[in-house]
Amino acid sequence: MDFLSIIEDKKRGRALSAEQIRMFADGAATGSVPDYQLSALLMAIRLNGMNAEETAHLTMAMAQSGNMLQPDVGGVPVDKHSTGGVGDTTTLVLAPLVAACGGKVLKMSGRGLGHTGGTVDKMEAIPGMRVTLPESEFVDIVRRIGCAVVGQSAELAPADKRLYALRDVTATVDSIPLIASSVLSKKFASGARAIVLDVKTGSGALMNTEEDSIRLAKAMVDIGTLAGRYVTAVVSGMQEPLGSHVGNALEVKEAIDVLAGRVDENHPLCYVAVYLGAHMLLGGGQAQTLEEAKAMLLSALREGRGLAKLKEMIRAQGGDDRVCDDVGLLPQAPCIVPLAAPEDGYLSATDCTALGRAAQLMGAGRIRKEDEIDPAVGFVMEKRIGDFVRKGENICTLHARSMESAKETGERILSALTFSAVPCGKARLLYDLVDCTGVHPL
Amino acid sequence: MDFLSIIEDKKRGRALSAEQIRMFADGAATGSVPDYQLSALLMAIRLNGMNAEETAHLTMAMAQSGNMLQPDVGGVPVDKHSTGGVGDTTTLVLAPLVAACGGKVLKMSGRGLGHTGGTVDKMEAIPGMRVTLPESEFVDIVRRIGCAVVGQSAELAPADKRLYALRDVTATVDSIPLIASSVLSKKFASGARAIVLDVKTGSGALMNTEEDSIRLAKAMVDIGTLAGRYVTAVVSGMQEPLGSHVGNALEVKEAIDVLAGRVDENHPLCYVAVYLGAHMLLGGGQAQTLEEAKAMLLSALREGRGLAKLKEMIRAQGGDDRVCDDVGLLPQAPCIVPLAAPEDGYLSATDCTALGRAAQLMGAGRIRKEDEIDPAVGFVMEKRIGDFVRKGENICTLHARSMESAKETGERILSALTFSAVPCGKARLLYDLVDCTGVHPL
Repeated sequence: MDFLSIIEDKKRGRALSAEQIRMFADGAATGSVPDYQLSALLMAIRLNGMNAEETAHLTMAMAQSGNMLQPDVGGVPVDKHSTGGVGDTTTLVLAPLVAACGGKVLKMSGRGLGHTGGTVDKMEAIPGMRVTLPESEFVDIVRRIGCAVVGQSAELAPADKRLYALRDVTATVDSIPLIASSVLSKKFASGARAIVLDVKTGSGALMNTEEDSIRLAKAMVDIGTLAGRYVTAVVSGMQEPLGSHVGNALEVKEAIDVLAGRVDENHPLCYVAVYLGAHMLLGGGQAQTLEEAKAMLLSALREGRGLAKLKEMIRAQGGDDRVCDDVGLLPQAPCIVPLAAPEDGYLSATDCTALGRAAQLMGAGRIRKEDEIDPAVGFVMEKRIGDFVRKGENICTLHARSMESAKETGERILSALTFSAVPCGKARLLYDLVDCTGVHPL
Repeated sequence: MDFLSIIEDKKRGRALSAEQIRMFADGAATGSVPDYQLSALLMAIRLNGMNAEETAHLTMAMAQSGNMLQPDVGGVPVDKHSTGGVGDTTTLVLAPLVAACGGKVLKMSGRGLGHTGGTVDKMEAIPGMRVTLPESEFVDIVRRIGCAVVGQSAELAPADKRLYALRDVTATVDSIPLIASSVLSKKFASGARAIVLDVKTGSGALMNTEEDSIRLAKAMVDIGTLAGRYVTAVVSGMQEPLGSHVGNALEVKEAIDVLAGRVDENHPLCYVAVYLGAHMLLGGGQAQTLEEAKAMLLSALREGRGLAKLKEMIRAQGGDDRVCDDVGLLPQAPCIVPLAAPEDGYLSATDCTALGRAAQLMGAGRIRKEDEIDPAVGFVMEKRIGDFVRKGENICTLHARSMESAKETGERILSALTFSAVPCGKARLLYDLVDCTGVHPL
């Protein structure tokens, strides 16, 4: 079997065999197949697709292209992955809550990508926090405490690492089988047995339409079914930032506020975190029904056990856990400036990608891979879609490095907001649940 | 403009602008665009196609990526290109005939590729023949004599050179816009103003169906129309070797036989050569109607002026022109062996690619790029499709380097022939003529 015949088959729209896909993944991992052949195949896959079996084979082959961890954490290792959002710090809320209910959250997270934030960058806003731990220490923390959040190990799924970099420069990122297999190959390699996926949909998401989001969710759940792993996907809204805080230290603060009970339980960040966390308890075997799981998490939240667990985790990972009692210890931006509403009206829509981009340009994200993050900067949305706002009222508090940055960011944010003279509803939070039995609209 | 947006546009099925295509060709020629991006775009073009304007832009951009010759040959420089056949030595027949009628044949030829022969390899079977000449000498010979046949210069159309090599290893050869632009970019760069294309169709051709052959022919004629060059394409049959001789020295011998009047004028090789040559005289302005052009060529043939012109050309290119009077001076294989028909019957079909492959495996072609050609080996088909043959009768005379090779080749040839108990017609020679006014079935 030569690689050219694999490209030829996919070019002609044929399904690839398990053996062909293994040659693809191994060739990517070992370097035995040159970039120009991999990229031709990636484009053929982008244009001619892959069926569920092929996608599952690719996921397993990429996972097996490097080390496959089998961590002994004293229970089912559960993980959660989001396709990327703005102001979305569900991980820092749900990981401690799930752990407080007996779950074993083995969370490998990414850094911020484009306009979306990354949990690892947020964690590093906490003084002293270590996000790179030896595997044995990471596993030990999960076994003892129930949760740990670290960066993705470079040794896991090396085939995905090479293909991911190549997709980025060959316009082949937007392929559902390639996205699905990339996400799950890393999760499978890290040893997660139950995985809850949060597929974002809307103006701030990778997938803009509900239809595409469901297709991606189904592709990932199908992989789980074929690979014998527990995989559930939730399609949730990203029409505006999920929490009101956007920026690394600001999002850590908001997570602490939620866990400390200072935020209404129906606030979108809390609501979605509890919903996703409940599916993690189902996957980990700590609960039998969704209602039971939600009730467990809300009890933990109300009793302060989530906040206590976050403290334990921060301490175990070398961070200063006093931030949980005093969010003033988190990095603070020097310029905190309100942004006045330009007119009376109802906030009817946001260009959520533009909002994420505004935070990125302030320094909360990277423009080039080698850029350093400014943990303190960002902004807090004071209004949500559906809210009425009076002209001159503060709609967004900017946390900037300089007044110039605050001014620029304010302009960017205003041009990303749409106001309406007539009342409009709130943004939808949950769209669909995709599990191995099908798609359930929520 | 960045290259990624060009890939993105073609991936989404959009037409590329002239500027985008120029960036593609220049990036290929200068090396500023990496292989992996070129190959992703090549696959997107293979799968999403290119319209006539894009194909013409690509042709001109690849032609202009290197030197553009403007040879002063004392008339319209005409060229002819075949998509590749077996036993097809029309060039060596028509170039001298067209020159004898006043045409200026500026022929840049390729080497054999796969199962198909190449004119340059055939020329080198003539002792002393030089196929690499300085541009000034090549142009001078055409100006003085009317024809010269040399190898493709490496400096012409460097963008095509890089893309051609990449297509070969990324399964993107079989794309009509890429084939069409590749062929014509080299012709345009070499200074040809009138180009006659011979698009082969059938079991020995790159394009197996008449429909695909017409599509390729139309694509090339469209480029000519848009680029302001005279381009005519003939779709001709390749169901069996065109001449009866297959192999380098053997094909030179057959061309000499034709020009010396030892072959019937209706023999397929002669018939097709005169038809293609007539279109070259039309393109060069030496004749006004096809009938007039054919009559001119047949007169030249009957009067021996074609053979005299071949002698002149061989002498001018340093070859031993005595081969024209004594074909025994051409290289001879040591083992000349008849192949007996295995049964009574009508020869009804040949796998013409397999016949070409059999010659290639004898040494008449290359398996690896660095292989040396054996000019003497090959075979002479003694029967054509439609002929009746008796069991034991000689159907093919093998010219082999050894008895083992003759035996192997004989087996390969027999397995490529189909016999029928009932009479069948001859193979069709001419299918369609495609010129700037449309497709005309022949």
